[in-house]
Amino acid sequence: MDRTQDRTPRRSAARGRYTVGDERRARILDSAVEHFAERGFHASSLARIAKDVGITQGGLLHYFRSKEDLLVSVLEHSEAQDHERFFSHAPDSAVELFAVLVDLAAYNSARPGRTKMFNILAAEAGERGHPAHEHFVRRYRTVINYSLAPVQAAVDNGELKPDTDCEAIVTEVAAVMDGLQLQWALAPETYDMPGRLRTYLDRLLRSLTVDGSGLPETA
Amino acid sequence: MDRTQDRTPRRSAARGRYTVGDERRARILDSAVEHFAERGFHASSLARIAKDVGITQGGLLHYFRSKEDLLVSVLEHSEAQDHERFFSHAPDSAVELFAVLVDLAAYNSARPGRTKMFNILAAEAGERGHPAHEHFVRRYRTVINYSLAPVQAAVDNGELKPDTDCEAIVTEVAAVMDGLQLQWALAPETYDMPGRLRTYLDRLLRSLTVDGSGLPETA
Repeated sequence: MDRTQDRTPRRSAARGRYTVGDERRARILDSAVEHFAERGFHASSLARIAKDVGITQGGLLHYFRSKEDLLVSVLEHSEAQDHERFFSHAPDSAVELFAVLVDLAAYNSARPGRTKMFNILAAEAGERGHPAHEHFVRRYRTVINYSLAPVQAAVDNGELKPDTDCEAIVTEVAAVMDGLQLQWALAPETYDMPGRLRTYLDRLLRSLTVDGSGLPETA
Repeated sequence: MDRTQDRTPRRSAARGRYTVGDERRARILDSAVEHFAERGFHASSLARIAKDVGITQGGLLHYFRSKEDLLVSVLEHSEAQDHERFFSHAPDSAVELFAVLVDLAAYNSARPGRTKMFNILAAEAGERGHPAHEHFVRRYRTVINYSLAPVQAAVDNGELKPDTDCEAIVTEVAAVMDGLQLQWALAPETYDMPGRLRTYLDRLLRSLTVDGSGLPETA
């Protein structure tokens, strides 16, 4: 491990160095996910995160200027990944939205570190002064708005009942996903999170559609 | 503040001392709730919890032998309070169960410290080695079993549709309550948690009852 590279400013690095820097940055983010997942933000230590990557705390501070900066970077990075994988295309229907959410739940159950980190940070962020507070306030607003459009469209085109309270529905869907994730984290090997979400969304849809139809088998 | 009393063993204390000890014990539990709610288990410090009560860490250790012991005591204490207030009587019907849960949500929104603590500890407890892991595994089992009986009874007596998946329903209800609590904690002044839970339970009930009825106005 060449620790001298920790102190090489990225902006002055040659092309080859950028690659080393990017790779190290990615490994710091991965290590931070594991630490935040296990102990939360407050009890995580920059020194221990750095040690797991094989660098010094000073080396880590070359990439992220503080623990708060690292936290925000971890959250933005994983949000960007989710956006690219699941949310880059706006769903055209409630069925399509619900199918994407089941896929997301399946993906979340396959990456326990990231998902447990989400559970803890979302809970910690209830504290006004927490460095992720604003992130989570904004995140829920984004999730609600993203989900609201296709549900409202399904009401407008007569697929869902006209008296559907769209905002209540999408708030509830977000709550179910978070709540199932808490239960799942207690027994990730045996708890079928995407299956339970699918059961819920199928019943929800049956109660909302004008013709009583639920999620298609393929969704 | 008479700190000498910290070291008086409770079991040998005279009646009057018991009262002082009980009162101090209760204040330690209250202080611990605030600390766990703000920073979670790992980042909370026995010394700081003790300081807020006006005693030394040694004094605190006279009442609780470790931070783990304090955590388990806090959880058992608040579970016992909830049991007495909400769950000492087994509900006779799904309507009665749902009404109790709305009352619980209203109560939880009126005690932010306790509720935020629950959010964080439930999330942290996903980690297998966490001292509250077993508590939360057991707690969900208790919640599910408590809720399952009246829902199953409502199916058996023909109130709910015969194909109702009772276990899926009560798992989902627990998830919604936990998920709404996470959203509520981000803006407790403006987020109507019991109202949102009521809206959800009313719609859920309408989708399950044979006659399509929901929660009565008074519930």
